[in-house]
Amino acid sequence: MTARPLRVALLGAGNVGLEVARLLTESAEDLSARIGAPLEVVAVVVRDLGRARPGIDPTLLTDDAEAVVARTDLDIVIELLGGIEPARSLLLTAMANGASVVTANKALLATDGTTLFEAAEQAGVDIYYEAAVAGAIPLLRPIRESLAGDHITRILGIVNGTTNFILTKMDESGADYHDVLLEAQQLGYAEADPTADVEGHDAAAKAAILASLAFHTRVTLDDVSCEGISQVTAVDIKAAHDMGFVIKLLAIAERLPDDEGIVVRVHPAMVPREHPLASVRLAFNAVFVEAESAGQVMFYGRGAGGAPTASSVLGDVVTVARNRVAGHHGPVHNAYAHLPVLGIGAARTRYAISFRVTDEPGVLATIANTFAEEGVSLQVVRQDGSGEDAHLLVRTHKSTEAALAATLKRLRRLTAVKEVVGVMRVEGEAGN
Amino acid sequence: MTARPLRVALLGAGNVGLEVARLLTESAEDLSARIGAPLEVVAVVVRDLGRARPGIDPTLLTDDAEAVVARTDLDIVIELLGGIEPARSLLLTAMANGASVVTANKALLATDGTTLFEAAEQAGVDIYYEAAVAGAIPLLRPIRESLAGDHITRILGIVNGTTNFILTKMDESGADYHDVLLEAQQLGYAEADPTADVEGHDAAAKAAILASLAFHTRVTLDDVSCEGISQVTAVDIKAAHDMGFVIKLLAIAERLPDDEGIVVRVHPAMVPREHPLASVRLAFNAVFVEAESAGQVMFYGRGAGGAPTASSVLGDVVTVARNRVAGHHGPVHNAYAHLPVLGIGAARTRYAISFRVTDEPGVLATIANTFAEEGVSLQVVRQDGSGEDAHLLVRTHKSTEAALAATLKRLRRLTAVKEVVGVMRVEGEAGN
Repeated sequence: MTARPLRVALLGAGNVGLEVARLLTESAEDLSARIGAPLEVVAVVVRDLGRARPGIDPTLLTDDAEAVVARTDLDIVIELLGGIEPARSLLLTAMANGASVVTANKALLATDGTTLFEAAEQAGVDIYYEAAVAGAIPLLRPIRESLAGDHITRILGIVNGTTNFILTKMDESGADYHDVLLEAQQLGYAEADPTADVEGHDAAAKAAILASLAFHTRVTLDDVSCEGISQVTAVDIKAAHDMGFVIKLLAIAERLPDDEGIVVRVHPAMVPREHPLASVRLAFNAVFVEAESAGQVMFYGRGAGGAPTASSVLGDVVTVARNRVAGHHGPVHNAYAHLPVLGIGAARTRYAISFRVTDEPGVLATIANTFAEEGVSLQVVRQDGSGEDAHLLVRTHKSTEAALAATLKRLRRLTAVKEVVGVMRVEGEAGN
Repeated sequence: MTARPLRVALLGAGNVGLEVARLLTESAEDLSARIGAPLEVVAVVVRDLGRARPGIDPTLLTDDAEAVVARTDLDIVIELLGGIEPARSLLLTAMANGASVVTANKALLATDGTTLFEAAEQAGVDIYYEAAVAGAIPLLRPIRESLAGDHITRILGIVNGTTNFILTKMDESGADYHDVLLEAQQLGYAEADPTADVEGHDAAAKAAILASLAFHTRVTLDDVSCEGISQVTAVDIKAAHDMGFVIKLLAIAERLPDDEGIVVRVHPAMVPREHPLASVRLAFNAVFVEAESAGQVMFYGRGAGGAPTASSVLGDVVTVARNRVAGHHGPVHNAYAHLPVLGIGAARTRYAISFRVTDEPGVLATIANTFAEEGVSLQVVRQDGSGEDAHLLVRTHKSTEAALAATLKRLRRLTAVKEVVGVMRVEGEAGN
């Protein structure tokens, strides 16, 4: 061991930051052996200097982030502040001053990753961010490197633990959304303001990051069609259950045939109970990656939490530190494919639709005709009840969102259709 | 794009090799964009020049492997010959002459990986081998890099598709081992001589490779305790089924507490039906990795086949090619931990044991006492039948293999015990 120590600054010492700091100390010897040089933490930036930070040398604490990233002797800056600013400015300054960076900031990466990647390339430093998507699960590096010789066609995953916790509890207890949300908040699985999770924004940021890597194309949060779980009712869950499905909030990024473009979307969907994603319970995450040669590959593990996220951060720290010792940097981000990013109208999937209909002969035929005329092919049709309670349940074969929307518009005008009660996408079926 | 083309030689054009050759041609443009330089295949080594190799330019074919690796202008050599020699000599010559290498040769890596890794380090070139374990599943790179900041405690996986196919069929049909083996051979899932698969040697080679990477310690095939599935009967499967378990051939590498050492073993084991590994059917592979901070992470996908394996090979080709363009190489293999590799006697697991016993009062107590005296704690005891058919079924808590062996030796001497009918390890239970 002759290499000089590598100087590390940590921006943020919350849940994950404290764990990273602890591991940097406790595993110092192992990390040094794996890297080929010791790591030396030289600063820990916190917002509130008054709060206790157990396990962190108090002389390292500072609230002056600007002064830390202004240093020109840093090797690695770990950013765990979250949010767009000041995180972006701090990272840009750190890279301009020669530091490689490791970040878990999904919001920033999904909004303005390109600025960061270009700054890293220009400065000749690394930017790694495994912890930004699916916590402890090694996912970005496999997509960026292991599958780099293949053509990824589709990514389908559960990437938000809060919503999966809520949907699992609703499925297993029959309880309603608001009761389960309250339970999740009490247990610490949902924040006091749960909007970012339950409305799908968190999953959408991750979907944008995954799509960018998988399709070598710039995809930002604004490109992601996003619908959360706050409208999912106990009745929806029960109806899905009766058909042999569970409802999951999925992040889906797919490349359309003939490089027509890519579609990235987040929404609740019905998944067959025998599909591996159906058995991903509570706060766990799982992501399917489908590639032309590899077929389906699945990654599963803890998507959040201090220790699992810290594991991902440390893995990135070892990688950039090894690169530093060897005097080089990892592969740069490459958006060479420039595929068009299309709206959800271009997506092709299956649908389950329930209608309240008038109880008279010929209703089913009228509705089926409307689907046929819009080119949406039906897979299952079931009529239940009678009188005021006459219900029609329809499952379609694959169709574009645009064709489905046109069909629904026409159906809503029919006098036979009293109400379109629910529309749910169906994912993970054979051929889907 | 200004970088010069990278010269690639392919050793072996069987199932995987043909697919690699096809993808190198068909995906040339994408690969070039991802790498930053085009790849140029300059030679394809085959054993039999007379056989048709569809899709390969016939002028590239040669049967003179020595002449190919003697070239000093190669950038990348892809070795898909398998076996120890001449693969080892060819790879050593190729690296000495400056080429980086990509190989899928698990037998060679598990037997003499150290020689290859040292040669690569000395020559300043890369050696990558993702395809050697679990086909298309990105597994080695995540262990080597993503989890490099964590402490892996245990790897538990299904890494042989042939045996998993056979065990799945036995479980689902009730058929006996030999009938299912025949079916697997007819369908191409098992070779004419199935020994390497069914006796666990293939899985053991993969376990040695995984353990070396996970524990930063040299582990070879000889260090792996190995037992195959040829002794697993329809009766065993049925008995496991009745208790809520399935039998899987598992590869297990674990670090004992306090860095006492590591144990690497391959054997059939009972896995609870609700465990994610239990639902891995047919020729699929899945590997659980347990790390201190990350918790449990699972990887799932196709473990074999031309296209999936080619996907892994191409991913490695892109990595070493990117390194080549950047003028550096990836992290070297590091066995700094030098943990002792212990025999299976040191392993701690649970056991299910069935006995044929005499039908008289006190038998259960006598047997239970023997377990207790050897320090093996019982979890479940069940006595069935009477007379000649009196059976005792015992499941233990965790114990060392050594304590279990001592217990069994004493039990076999008891007059009350007519026969120890079967002993099966139990893995994947809570706390196990």
